[in-house]
Amino acid sequence: MQRPTLTLLAAALMLATGLACATDTPTTIPAAAVHTAEQLRDKAMHDDTAYQVVASLTTEIGPRIAGGVNDPRARAWAIAKFKALGFDKVYTEPVTYPLWVRRSEHGAIVAPFPQSLSLTALGYSPGTPKGGLTAQVVQFPSLEALKAADPSSVKGKIVYIGYRMHRTKDGHDYGIGAGIREEGPLVAYAKGAAGFLLRSAGTDPNSRTPHAGVTDFTDFKHPDKAVPAAALSNPDADQLERVLAYGKPVTVKLDLDCGLAGTYTGYNVIGDITGRKYPDQVVVIGGHLDSWDPGTGAIDDGAGVAIALGAAKLIHDLPQRPDRTVRVIAFANEEMGLWGGRAYADRHAAEVGKFQLGTESDLGAAPVWRMSASVKPQARGAIEQIAKVLEPIGVAYDPKRPGGGGSDLSQMHLKGMAALSLAQDATYYFDWHHTANDTLDKIDPQQLAQNVAVYAVFTYMAAQADGNFGSAPNAFAGDGADD
Amino acid sequence: MQRPTLTLLAAALMLATGLACATDTPTTIPAAAVHTAEQLRDKAMHDDTAYQVVASLTTEIGPRIAGGVNDPRARAWAIAKFKALGFDKVYTEPVTYPLWVRRSEHGAIVAPFPQSLSLTALGYSPGTPKGGLTAQVVQFPSLEALKAADPSSVKGKIVYIGYRMHRTKDGHDYGIGAGIREEGPLVAYAKGAAGFLLRSAGTDPNSRTPHAGVTDFTDFKHPDKAVPAAALSNPDADQLERVLAYGKPVTVKLDLDCGLAGTYTGYNVIGDITGRKYPDQVVVIGGHLDSWDPGTGAIDDGAGVAIALGAAKLIHDLPQRPDRTVRVIAFANEEMGLWGGRAYADRHAAEVGKFQLGTESDLGAAPVWRMSASVKPQARGAIEQIAKVLEPIGVAYDPKRPGGGGSDLSQMHLKGMAALSLAQDATYYFDWHHTANDTLDKIDPQQLAQNVAVYAVFTYMAAQADGNFGSAPNAFAGDGADD
Repeated sequence: MQRPTLTLLAAALMLATGLACATDTPTTIPAAAVHTAEQLRDKAMHDDTAYQVVASLTTEIGPRIAGGVNDPRARAWAIAKFKALGFDKVYTEPVTYPLWVRRSEHGAIVAPFPQSLSLTALGYSPGTPKGGLTAQVVQFPSLEALKAADPSSVKGKIVYIGYRMHRTKDGHDYGIGAGIREEGPLVAYAKGAAGFLLRSAGTDPNSRTPHAGVTDFTDFKHPDKAVPAAALSNPDADQLERVLAYGKPVTVKLDLDCGLAGTYTGYNVIGDITGRKYPDQVVVIGGHLDSWDPGTGAIDDGAGVAIALGAAKLIHDLPQRPDRTVRVIAFANEEMGLWGGRAYADRHAAEVGKFQLGTESDLGAAPVWRMSASVKPQARGAIEQIAKVLEPIGVAYDPKRPGGGGSDLSQMHLKGMAALSLAQDATYYFDWHHTANDTLDKIDPQQLAQNVAVYAVFTYMAAQADGNFGSAPNAFAGDGADD
Repeated sequence: MQRPTLTLLAAALMLATGLACATDTPTTIPAAAVHTAEQLRDKAMHDDTAYQVVASLTTEIGPRIAGGVNDPRARAWAIAKFKALGFDKVYTEPVTYPLWVRRSEHGAIVAPFPQSLSLTALGYSPGTPKGGLTAQVVQFPSLEALKAADPSSVKGKIVYIGYRMHRTKDGHDYGIGAGIREEGPLVAYAKGAAGFLLRSAGTDPNSRTPHAGVTDFTDFKHPDKAVPAAALSNPDADQLERVLAYGKPVTVKLDLDCGLAGTYTGYNVIGDITGRKYPDQVVVIGGHLDSWDPGTGAIDDGAGVAIALGAAKLIHDLPQRPDRTVRVIAFANEEMGLWGGRAYADRHAAEVGKFQLGTESDLGAAPVWRMSASVKPQARGAIEQIAKVLEPIGVAYDPKRPGGGGSDLSQMHLKGMAALSLAQDATYYFDWHHTANDTLDKIDPQQLAQNVAVYAVFTYMAAQADGNFGSAPNAFAGDGADD
């Protein structure tokens, strides 16, 4: 019993593992669980449950804007699907949010060259006055340029920002495009503009399908502090810019019938495969059930719901239940501001220590290519064990990046849940994202199956781990996760 | 003077040249003209006049459905553009046709899975009754299957044909797709159907942009002998087929506000660069000024008008006028049945012998890859001279195929005009053809310039030829040309 020696050993361990506490045993995944995970992976690569699920959702329900006519239909579909797939507990939790509705939308260049424009109103945009809003267009190349503009140059005009996104594997241009869509209308309002237009936050260079998406008009107590805001398709943005380049005043008419319409209560739909040994400890995965309305929400985010359900079903079908509970959540109203994710995190914050590990799939249906994690240092070895099983199917582990938990589950991560990030190949995702073109034909069944394999592997291995991944209140504050 | 010998020589020539008459001198193109044509070709490859023309048309005018609000605007644009480019005669000729108008169009699956459908009404379709037409859908894989169907299986239902076009360089699938679109509605009507739907005659696999186009409902004295007819986008056709595959009765609602609305008189716009030696002999090229209304008619057929104008402008800018007149025609209402081309041919049939050679550009803006000709045998050598100048820019000469003159000018060819066919690469043309996506961004300026080079070369060489190409009343009857 050489206490001084033990203390030195502990200090060395702390250095080796960052913030590790010497009394903590490293989390590991038993060899039998690794072996089963490999079998799950190989089976998942040839399993079409997820594809059948997303085909069913997009065919039988179609578009699913939060609070719209298909919201309760989608919820009923989800409850039935969870039950059919064998979850032993299926339940809902309420999510209340301001209801935004889209009734109709038209846009046109009035002068100098009259013609219609393909556009779509942005989330939380107010409608235009009856008869439409007609005003001169003033163009800015970027959000920064708009911010720097003298209000007198903007007052009474329709602001247009023409930033063009490009395709990248990690989709990083969306940070800029979505930033313009969210904050741009607010800045335009603050400077006295009459309206706001942007080149769609999307990478398709030549489709007349504008990209919907939400704005930062979230001061719901003052809905009048907003201006009508819409996105032009890329070819329509090109056209508007060509017309502006003639150097004559360009007048555009917006006729948007949309706006806030009270409050709606939707529901997160939740299914559990209850754990055999530790039923109150949970590995949580999911997607969001709502979609934007122009398309049928196949890649955003029928795919995410389907991937999580497909993975859970494979685990459910094993001879023995997993040690911990596997939970799938189909979140309500992600699109207009993580309403489902925030409601879930607020309700379950106190239990965050019971959430073993989690992440949500919400970047389409192309293959996962990178894994990263926010876990306690003593769980890094277990993450490496997971990475080793995923490496043969194209997933690279980046130990230096945090894991954010995906869109809605980022909110549980913010509360302190250990989380992964599983980056999908986003090269073409933003071609179709939030457009009428988000339909089932954009999903490759084989690529979808790779996602299922990834989710099945990590979910099962986390459920069977000896030890936890470090979830605790505020355990990962400031880890830099951005999703 | 060995006359018998000469006679033998003549007989040998006749064998070598098919139908040649021994007293005819072979048509040839003087060396100086060949040299100038080579210079025109090389200059055209770096000339952007055509791109500026199609940019101007699609930006300043936009969609140009025949008889619509933009019809007179497009005509005024064309007259001004012809004059600005230096044509010494610019004039119009009337084209009168039944006016068909599209006011609004909606479609939806009503049962078992309610959701909207992206569709567009077809040309000459009547509207649905006020409140829409709701009926069960009956599916057929092909036009032949519909033709073979017992009328009792169709009566009162909405016929749907799901034939899918594929991309090919020569676009031959359009023959099948357009055939279904044109004849299908007629067959459906004859069998007592309530309506007609088809999978769009288009090759884009995954765009929610339905393809417009005309039907064979051309019995204008009996407009009631027709049923509402529309095209679904490819993803919507996929969706309808998935819904049908559930095996339950599928009900669709069509709400089309469209139909015939009297008679309209539009105009072919014509510009001449008057020939120096033979002003009454004409080389004729062109495109059509009208377009379908969802897009801005860039590839169909702003490009054709621009190619012809760009080629003529290069010839105009030569130090000396061409020997024969170069004529460019921007035809009215090609889309609803070659109305402009037929009017022109009817008016000028008696002068067909004065038309040296002609063809129209109406297959987009991708490179010309094949040339063929319908000319008299003694002009084959001149065609080979043209082919030799075009070979370096990727045009292969096929001496075995006829030349049809393109869409509208096919009608002059039918009257007896010597004609070329200049096949453009149609691989992607039918992705965008007749859709909202037919916009300027689909045109590659370099590819467009190759077309201009081809048109400038053949037009100039035909204008300078020693001899003619065989135009005469009915000179090419039964040559098998199909365009």
